[in-house]
Amino acid sequence: MSRDDSILDPAIAERLKRTPDGLVCAVVVEHATAEVLMVAWMDDEALERTLTTRRATYYSRSRQRLWVKGETSGHTQHVREVRVDCDGDTLLVRVDQTGPACHTGTRTCFDTGARLLLAED
Amino acid sequence: MSRDDSILDPAIAERLKRTPDGLVCAVVVEHATAEVLMVAWMDDEALERTLTTRRATYYSRSRQRLWVKGETSGHTQHVREVRVDCDGDTLLVRVDQTGPACHTGTRTCFDTGARLLLAED
Repeated sequence: MSRDDSILDPAIAERLKRTPDGLVCAVVVEHATAEVLMVAWMDDEALERTLTTRRATYYSRSRQRLWVKGETSGHTQHVREVRVDCDGDTLLVRVDQTGPACHTGTRTCFDTGARLLLAED
Repeated sequence: MSRDDSILDPAIAERLKRTPDGLVCAVVVEHATAEVLMVAWMDDEALERTLTTRRATYYSRSRQRLWVKGETSGHTQHVREVRVDCDGDTLLVRVDQTGPACHTGTRTCFDTGARLLLAED
């Protein structure tokens, strides 16, 4: 792919309101159930790759590089839809998740964390 | 409420991994449908108020102050559950939403934004 082909569509790029680090927040939900699986971050290149390959690709703030979800674990995400929110700083990414979404092995990243306030019913 | 009473429970506080600005990301979903309504940010005080009052309270990065969701619009959120994710930097907040969640008047903050990739089916 030539350099020009890999640039995020300007019509999309201008809608985004990025952090000082050039990132937008990505909320990832399971397509079939709408359940929230995880939250990650994307820079323009991660988003462009996600849109063109349909393989969810994020930017790791700790490792400071792109990562394709499941590149080592095999727990990939096939992207069905990406939406931008009202003010352009958050993406809603609907995926078909293969295997557990969380690196700890649970289905979502919210299955092992503390429940701070229990449901009332 | 005395100052001591308003401090976030240390057992909760130590689980959180905050941005350099002291914030964690809050993904807000409708309790009844699990639909993602919006994404906002909380500092420790916003979280403590959310947990003790059950009225969703966030930290506005643009206005640099706490805001109770619906304080002017009346579109409040009654908090049913708060979970922390696997690495402590994201909260999943389940609410009963009164009225539209988005300040633009739509039900969620993802109803008016661009759809970057359409569902395949």
